[in-house]
Amino acid sequence: MPLDFFILPVSLTLTAGLQAKIDQKTKPLGALGQLEGLALKIGLIQNTLTPCLSKPTLLIFAGDHGIVKSGVSAYPQSVTAQMVANFLSGGAAISVFARQHSLKLMIVDAGVNADFPHPNPLGGCSRRSPTSCIHAVVPGGEGAFRCHPQLIDAKIAKGTKNFLTEPAMTSSQCETAIQKGAGLVMQQHQAGCNCIGFGEMGIGNTSSAALLAHCLADMPLAQCVGRGTGLDDNQLQHKHDVLQQAMDFHKGITESLDILATFGGFEIAMMLGAYLKAAELGMLILVDGFIASAALLVAYRLHPAVLDYCVFSHVSSEQGHQALLATLNAKPLLNLELRLGEGSGIALAYPLIQSAVLFLNEMATFAGAGVDVKNCN
Amino acid sequence: MPLDFFILPVSLTLTAGLQAKIDQKTKPLGALGQLEGLALKIGLIQNTLTPCLSKPTLLIFAGDHGIVKSGVSAYPQSVTAQMVANFLSGGAAISVFARQHSLKLMIVDAGVNADFPHPNPLGGCSRRSPTSCIHAVVPGGEGAFRCHPQLIDAKIAKGTKNFLTEPAMTSSQCETAIQKGAGLVMQQHQAGCNCIGFGEMGIGNTSSAALLAHCLADMPLAQCVGRGTGLDDNQLQHKHDVLQQAMDFHKGITESLDILATFGGFEIAMMLGAYLKAAELGMLILVDGFIASAALLVAYRLHPAVLDYCVFSHVSSEQGHQALLATLNAKPLLNLELRLGEGSGIALAYPLIQSAVLFLNEMATFAGAGVDVKNCN
Repeated sequence: MPLDFFILPVSLTLTAGLQAKIDQKTKPLGALGQLEGLALKIGLIQNTLTPCLSKPTLLIFAGDHGIVKSGVSAYPQSVTAQMVANFLSGGAAISVFARQHSLKLMIVDAGVNADFPHPNPLGGCSRRSPTSCIHAVVPGGEGAFRCHPQLIDAKIAKGTKNFLTEPAMTSSQCETAIQKGAGLVMQQHQAGCNCIGFGEMGIGNTSSAALLAHCLADMPLAQCVGRGTGLDDNQLQHKHDVLQQAMDFHKGITESLDILATFGGFEIAMMLGAYLKAAELGMLILVDGFIASAALLVAYRLHPAVLDYCVFSHVSSEQGHQALLATLNAKPLLNLELRLGEGSGIALAYPLIQSAVLFLNEMATFAGAGVDVKNCN
Repeated sequence: MPLDFFILPVSLTLTAGLQAKIDQKTKPLGALGQLEGLALKIGLIQNTLTPCLSKPTLLIFAGDHGIVKSGVSAYPQSVTAQMVANFLSGGAAISVFARQHSLKLMIVDAGVNADFPHPNPLGGCSRRSPTSCIHAVVPGGEGAFRCHPQLIDAKIAKGTKNFLTEPAMTSSQCETAIQKGAGLVMQQHQAGCNCIGFGEMGIGNTSSAALLAHCLADMPLAQCVGRGTGLDDNQLQHKHDVLQQAMDFHKGITESLDILATFGGFEIAMMLGAYLKAAELGMLILVDGFIASAALLVAYRLHPAVLDYCVFSHVSSEQGHQALLATLNAKPLLNLELRLGEGSGIALAYPLIQSAVLFLNEMATFAGAGVDVKNCN
């Protein structure tokens, strides 16, 4: 399948200029630690000494997984659709944190095993005012998100197949998902967004992510398989055994996109397209936890330069995330033992990204503030 | 000297109720990691299932240190006063970050070696509108902060004595500083603040903090002595030698307050009073970096229950902070290799504290959102 993304490595032209600007600020050299490298990175991505964050946006991709039939998750599949409703009614963690930081939050139905009413495939709302839709809290029922302006219909199918016995999706479905993900990012970019993050929801998707990490990051399977939403020891062993069986069944697959189609999910394939398009468009990309990192790993194998555009929000406590981050040369901002997904790590780290941009733009210089410089050594 | 603070341990009455509330939120058990413990702690401090953050405030205590005459700092003493001006004109890191998060920022002259004009000792401004004062950017000169509404005059003296050859301050000065710090917190509390953090500025004050940590946390001197604002290897060795000489000169002092008067600074003594009063008043206390933690260590030795009220914002890259935090049983929120002081770590961590309160108050429950619970094990 063709993957026509043209991702340029970030230009390093302004490195010295940005570093000089950082070093002239009224603080000891390096005293803002990781925020200084972050400011430098954002300046380079935007190729400017005065970067800005414009219309920061979170796309949450939701999809269901056939592998849950094999008992790999602590929660039933119904929770995926129920959590989509919860995102839309404003009651999920990511709803709260996105609201806190004024992040635009859009929920993408990539392949949830439920019927959502979509009068407008771009998520527009014709029957109610957007405000009343967003704030309506309707427990459970589908009415809660009828024509909700934050919901985008990009459904590929009602969940993937069980990859224990067949590929999760066809190559054609995988390609469609990638292109849809890319298209959604293009829409946000055209609306003025230059800073985007991707979250996910999908009961069973740590199983997909584990196999992507195993196949594409050369990590032992046992290191990749974690407790997800809360498996006990026996359930964890069962999950490992199921995934080992799946590996044995599909042995010999080596191409990144074949691995994705075989073991992935619609939300993961859509995230892949989203990452690649965002990098192509020169956007600042915010990376969430284990599943989001596994999707990025596929992007990295196809286009290594995608990492130039990525800031890693956090290391999660899901088994394997730390090793996966090491493969991606990532130095995450937060380590709060989160294991929630939904883009929650991105939202929590977002103020730090904002702080990096703000200190670069707003702090005084030694000369400007009349502050004496360091003693000669 | 009397230290009449009545600090009650935080009541644990609501522990089960808060934990149940956290566990009913639409997320896997424990999935919000450290934020969950934080929400629990804040709920206990405020003794409510619905905590709130009211008028969050940062007091930055500034003071000068006689020990800088012995060449322990990379920057000249003049920088303390210049940075006070920079805080007030809005150009310092903490100015930027406090503005970002709408934190009230007050600068306390605890003992800076400079004359600031103070027509009103409480920091009021009679001659200009507060707004024009706050936003006036005047490079360097004293005019920058003339009658500035964010500046509080609590000066004990124009810097401490050089503790290489005499105590930094008298017992009476130390007591006055403690009482002034307590009084300033009382003022903020009366103004409706229930969440307060303390930062500091003082060229030379990592030397004071190092000796407090050495004497009161039983840490080897070499572990306590760090590079501060950026000493090279030779300068670091010199700082260590100076501090060892000071220890030898003053050997035999064992009482916490005597140690504080001998090696401390006016800003550190004032922070001690501030911590103790904030705990007495049941406020949520936000702890910054190495110097702020050293001041808290003194408070902890006098009133161990003060820790019940403390949230640790970050571990800095200043040598010794990690070990000092261990002594205080602290689990900091951030590890960004900051080493700036000024309360900057508090301001950067503040949105996480806000997130903890928000998820507790605003997230939906499984029942309320109609989300299925976990499969039976």
